[in-house]
Amino acid sequence: MRNCISCQIKAKVEQRNEDLNAKLAFLTMPQPASFSDVVLFADDDDEHPVPVPAHKAVLANRSPVLRAMLDNEMKESLSGTIKIGDVSYDALRAFINYLYTAEVCLDQQLACELLVMSEKFLVQHLKDFCQKFLVSNLNLDNSLSTYTFAHQHNFKPIIDAALTQITASMDKLASQDEYTVLKERDLGLLLEIYEAYFSKQADTTMYI
Amino acid sequence: MRNCISCQIKAKVEQRNEDLNAKLAFLTMPQPASFSDVVLFADDDDEHPVPVPAHKAVLANRSPVLRAMLDNEMKESLSGTIKIGDVSYDALRAFINYLYTAEVCLDQQLACELLVMSEKFLVQHLKDFCQKFLVSNLNLDNSLSTYTFAHQHNFKPIIDAALTQITASMDKLASQDEYTVLKERDLGLLLEIYEAYFSKQADTTMYI
Repeated sequence: MRNCISCQIKAKVEQRNEDLNAKLAFLTMPQPASFSDVVLFADDDDEHPVPVPAHKAVLANRSPVLRAMLDNEMKESLSGTIKIGDVSYDALRAFINYLYTAEVCLDQQLACELLVMSEKFLVQHLKDFCQKFLVSNLNLDNSLSTYTFAHQHNFKPIIDAALTQITASMDKLASQDEYTVLKERDLGLLLEIYEAYFSKQADTTMYI
Repeated sequence: MRNCISCQIKAKVEQRNEDLNAKLAFLTMPQPASFSDVVLFADDDDEHPVPVPAHKAVLANRSPVLRAMLDNEMKESLSGTIKIGDVSYDALRAFINYLYTAEVCLDQQLACELLVMSEKFLVQHLKDFCQKFLVSNLNLDNSLSTYTFAHQHNFKPIIDAALTQITASMDKLASQDEYTVLKERDLGLLLEIYEAYFSKQADTTMYI
């Protein structure tokens, strides 16, 4: 066994990682159905909405907004039912599961829905996770729609990252379907892209 | 900024550690009192036992034994009350708190009590934690009492570590108070120490 200092540090860090993972596994709750004392419904769900069972204690611990809804004998606490507006069943299920496990398998659509939910219910950990995903998932095809989405909800880090992506391929901007849609709906957003491009150009010129 | 490979690896590991710590902070529940649906009492407590509030879902998730007590309409589930025998109030409180946070500040006495509880309720994560603490906390003064305790409950790693500690200072063995007590109560245990010492001696001789 090698006994150099860097090996010892590596072994220590790996041990620390192992300990943290074991703690995480211990604190994760993969079966939120047992002993449930509250159910949530997605308002966007069809005529026969499927209930998502949960526990008041867990919801209140993870989200100050849910805590406020459940505390103080609000109607949600008394009825044991929480209706969540503007969200799909799948997103609600993923949201609740995240509150129990801090895990979610994201795609572009789900990340957008969960980001909005995490903002609404002040779940910072999930908000950071979705923002990081959307930034790292930016590409030529989705940068304009991601930029529009981020603008609607004022998610600054995503706006900045999307602008960087868009202004790096300005020749392809006007040919995108999303561009035509945006031209009819929000000229201001397109203007901001052109301004950002020329402001970047000016900065680059200054440093040459 | 240095950009060598070892710096990059270090930064990656630190980022991973930070992510794990953030997840842990998110999943930890420091206020188990709200929305409680079960209370626990320590049987060793005085005439007016202090209730320790908890949540069935959390207890059932962390301990298969508590799950069995709470499932299937057992009397604990119906009454919402669980009595825990042979334990102090402080240990019960620390045990429940551990189930919510995976954290506890141990001393020798508490570690012994929690180790017995974790064995009884099959909470492996806490059992490992207490065993590691007791092994790392072994010294000349407590090795004999720790050895006796570990033998009572058959905690093999602690028995082995305590034997190593004791047999390293055999000249001080017979002068300890615990030795006199043990001599009256369990000669077999003392015999095992002498046997272990001479078996180690024989091994050492073989390698010289």
